Amino acid sequence: MNEIKIFCPATIANLNCGFDVLGLCLEGIGDEMIFRKTSQKGITISKITGADLPLETNKNVAGVAALAIYNTINPDFGIEIEIHKKIKAGSGIGSSSASAAGAVFCVNELLGKPYSKNQLVDFAMKGEAIASGSEHADNVAPCLLGGFTLVRGYNPLDVIRIDSPSELFAVVLHPHIEVKTSDSRAVLKPEISLKSAITQWGNLGGFIAGLYTKDYNLLGRSLQDVVIEPLRKHLIPNFDLVKNNALQNGALGAGISGAGPSIFALCKGQETAEKVAYAMSNSYQETGIEFDMHISKINPNGVIEIKK
Amino acid sequence: MNEIKIFCPATIANLNCGFDVLGLCLEGIGDEMIFRKTSQKGITISKITGADLPLETNKNVAGVAALAIYNTINPDFGIEIEIHKKIKAGSGIGSSSASAAGAVFCVNELLGKPYSKNQLVDFAMKGEAIASGSEHADNVAPCLLGGFTLVRGYNPLDVIRIDSPSELFAVVLHPHIEVKTSDSRAVLKPEISLKSAITQWGNLGGFIAGLYTKDYNLLGRSLQDVVIEPLRKHLIPNFDLVKNNALQNGALGAGISGAGPSIFALCKGQETAEKVAYAMSNSYQETGIEFDMHISKINPNGVIEIKK
Repeated sequence: MNEIKIFCPATIANLNCGFDVLGLCLEGIGDEMIFRKTSQKGITISKITGADLPLETNKNVAGVAALAIYNTINPDFGIEIEIHKKIKAGSGIGSSSASAAGAVFCVNELLGKPYSKNQLVDFAMKGEAIASGSEHADNVAPCLLGGFTLVRGYNPLDVIRIDSPSELFAVVLHPHIEVKTSDSRAVLKPEISLKSAITQWGNLGGFIAGLYTKDYNLLGRSLQDVVIEPLRKHLIPNFDLVKNNALQNGALGAGISGAGPSIFALCKGQETAEKVAYAMSNSYQETGIEFDMHISKINPNGVIEIKK
Repeated sequence: MNEIKIFCPATIANLNCGFDVLGLCLEGIGDEMIFRKTSQKGITISKITGADLPLETNKNVAGVAALAIYNTINPDFGIEIEIHKKIKAGSGIGSSSASAAGAVFCVNELLGKPYSKNQLVDFAMKGEAIASGSEHADNVAPCLLGGFTLVRGYNPLDVIRIDSPSELFAVVLHPHIEVKTSDSRAVLKPEISLKSAITQWGNLGGFIAGLYTKDYNLLGRSLQDVVIEPLRKHLIPNFDLVKNNALQNGALGAGISGAGPSIFALCKGQETAEKVAYAMSNSYQETGIEFDMHISKINPNGVIEIKK
């Protein structure tokens, strides 16, 4: 293989009761990247469209992630990268993670697949770190593995992939505002009450059980975040209204995607998802803030090659 | 049906990473109870063996739990109860819960089964409350439902029963010491770090996933309690030594059963369970404290009728 073109999907991390551990993979929303072998060794970025990102390899998320895996093998060829960003930076649906995950996926393919997808998560975290300031797997894991992913822990990284029930849809409303990472971190408290923690891990346990048993009601009952959402929702205009309208129109649950500003809802069936999307849109129009809406099944594949 | 005799099993609650939410049901260790219809209305306790417990209905855990369900129907007959305790009080393997769960199970049978097992959990919590001071379901749920139980939340009570992987064994070491409920509560802190909480809910999520996928290694990796065990283990002599010996001899994980003093280990297969039990025993003998050992498969049934 001398060249590979891929689709690297958007993702939802910090999924409600699963802050820092639970994520899912979206369909239809994602970047495209092309990776090509070159005779000169090293990693270069030849082209970026759709976003104003650095071309210097070691300042670019995809570049850093690509280097992390490339350097473990040090092959006798180089790689040049074309990045076509479709996921907006700062949207809260894993824009930088898509770049990092896509990069390690492609380099692994060009190297002849020395690493498993689970190992790729580890490499992608290296790239993600330059965007977020810390290595974490909650977006790169679902982007690479598809479905739902639970990051059980780090040291060593332990990621569990869980199939989505087939009728599950995600609705995402992305308001075109910037929520600074520093702000979304600043509102978190280093300590939480034991009582809230118990409520949260009961709900996360229930959500995981609901995924395995395909029990949509249980998924809905479990989608309650008593720890993070109450602190962060104030950073997102009209959050409560959008969430309540989603729930009143049949969503199983809703919450903040990533660190925001995107708001997501999970729904059973396309019809409900469309109704919920309409309701969420309506309740956002009054803010005067521009926004995008996405309706997506849960993507079972993660990053995939696009055949030309 | 005029009379019913039952076996009501011991249980492990506060299962490691699942403090206050996760429990399991044991086999072979449990009380026996006989419930008999009488012409005079009301609930009376006619006989108690194996423990020094009050015969007054409204001071007895079984009596209070029986009344909670009996009074909702107010039938034209009464019920007398014989209690044969085998589970030692204060052992940390659900002695009072077995009484409460057994009572509601029997009364429901004598009433013609108006309630589901899940509803019985609610009634049994009423009896449990007079033993523990608060209504909680973490022992009565596995005692009634068998297998593993996750109490997702209360208001309303939401209990999820999960089958155990078939080769899973529990080993329990019960030191004959008293750990006062007030002491085991006093060491808990009302606040915990967000970091620890995330570690804990990652592990609980992993454990639930391990149960559904019958992944024994994942169960083992997930059995880490960074919140409660570090605080409570000091109340149990030689806890660290027992736990380490269990792990070194092949246990998947180990922890405190309930609020102690019992120590449990989970193992794959009977052979490993026996080896682990031997190692745990050895490391307790040096304390000079008497103790019981139990080796048990996970009980899939919960409370059951014993045919005479």
